[in-house]
Amino acid sequence: MTTLYLIPTSLGPTELVSILPAEVCAVTASLHHFVAENAKTARAFLKQVNVSHPLSIALQEIQITELNINTPAAELSALLDPLRAGFNVGVLSEAGVPAVADPGASLVRLAHAEGITVKPLVGPSSILLALMASGLNGQSFAFHGYLPTDASMRSKRIKLLEQRSQQENQTQIFIETPYRNQALLEAMLSNCNGQTLVCVATDLTLASESIKTQTADAWKRDIAKGRLPDFHKKPTVFLFLAE
Amino acid sequence: MTTLYLIPTSLGPTELVSILPAEVCAVTASLHHFVAENAKTARAFLKQVNVSHPLSIALQEIQITELNINTPAAELSALLDPLRAGFNVGVLSEAGVPAVADPGASLVRLAHAEGITVKPLVGPSSILLALMASGLNGQSFAFHGYLPTDASMRSKRIKLLEQRSQQENQTQIFIETPYRNQALLEAMLSNCNGQTLVCVATDLTLASESIKTQTADAWKRDIAKGRLPDFHKKPTVFLFLAE
Repeated sequence: MTTLYLIPTSLGPTELVSILPAEVCAVTASLHHFVAENAKTARAFLKQVNVSHPLSIALQEIQITELNINTPAAELSALLDPLRAGFNVGVLSEAGVPAVADPGASLVRLAHAEGITVKPLVGPSSILLALMASGLNGQSFAFHGYLPTDASMRSKRIKLLEQRSQQENQTQIFIETPYRNQALLEAMLSNCNGQTLVCVATDLTLASESIKTQTADAWKRDIAKGRLPDFHKKPTVFLFLAE
Repeated sequence: MTTLYLIPTSLGPTELVSILPAEVCAVTASLHHFVAENAKTARAFLKQVNVSHPLSIALQEIQITELNINTPAAELSALLDPLRAGFNVGVLSEAGVPAVADPGASLVRLAHAEGITVKPLVGPSSILLALMASGLNGQSFAFHGYLPTDASMRSKRIKLLEQRSQQENQTQIFIETPYRNQALLEAMLSNCNGQTLVCVATDLTLASESIKTQTADAWKRDIAKGRLPDFHKKPTVFLFLAE
């Protein structure tokens, strides 16, 4: 029986010893076949693994096939070929855990359809770390990925999700393309109730990590005083909970 | 500056080397103060950490204060006293990551209100691992904790969430008290559309781990043939996605 391993990678420049269990590095080092969102990033990650856990074959002999948003559905099945030939395969995301907020899920689904064993490994997820550290409700939460970029559609969506948050006591979680972080925060603040709790979590697991939760009103006061979070062009998770 | 560390623990009997980064064990071993959902479980965990990362003081000198569903809100603030006195504090859940599907979030929220640094550490979350391995949509998902135990209310809720799943392409995630796993699966299958994809993920990170995704119709055929998943009294995450 072969296994499709889902292998988390780092969220930015950091030592693997702080974000991956040793056993995850050991499994990674044992594999000869990977499916990766970005082959270049995957190679850099494998080089980093190699420092503490020597790869079982030379890096240039390792087969890395890309799976990203441009991959046609018809090409998915071929990515499982090494498993059919008796080799384990590792799936690597561009950052964080595969198959969450990235295109890997379609491959995992196909693996289930063929009865292939799927093994998720432990590692950093900015969404989960942000939720833990937010202090917002962790017993009910929803992740929505990106909000619409059109301002009026985005406002409408924020208002709808704030209503749902209040009715169901459900934490709402979003991400944004890093250069639009300020625009998204401002859209949240101008559409949410002043008492809604808003968390901004930036550069998770990195030396520059910052996580802050306060009411929308308190964020507005900070911004009026010129105190924006230091999140320009930095990967950030946004969360809110209406009470 | 003192820090409130959110420290994940194992999901069952397993080697720490497979589920925790070495640095997380090192931070844990350095702390003298913990807030734990269950002091006995916390002590067992610290004993396990001590094997690879010797604790900085004797286990019996480590202060462990309980925070669970019976803790009155008025007693929360005192749990932060060590931080005010200059000591770092670790928060430990009964299993998995603190502040997600457990009572720790209220303490984290209070820490933010006092401007205390909150640092979430990497470790196993059954919810996240199940989502990764399910092959269901990881770009939009919602975790609902437990469903109502009343059969008619539960049916109503499942139908409502299946509708939402279809409209928003959102994966729905639940947990159940382990002895009720079969009842929950049957409730899902009898209320969901036959083509809805249902994932049952049991004993995540353990030697007995099993994860399977197939349509509700395929689950029903398996059950009719007497092939229930091996999940009786085992911690299980349930997920579905309606298309």
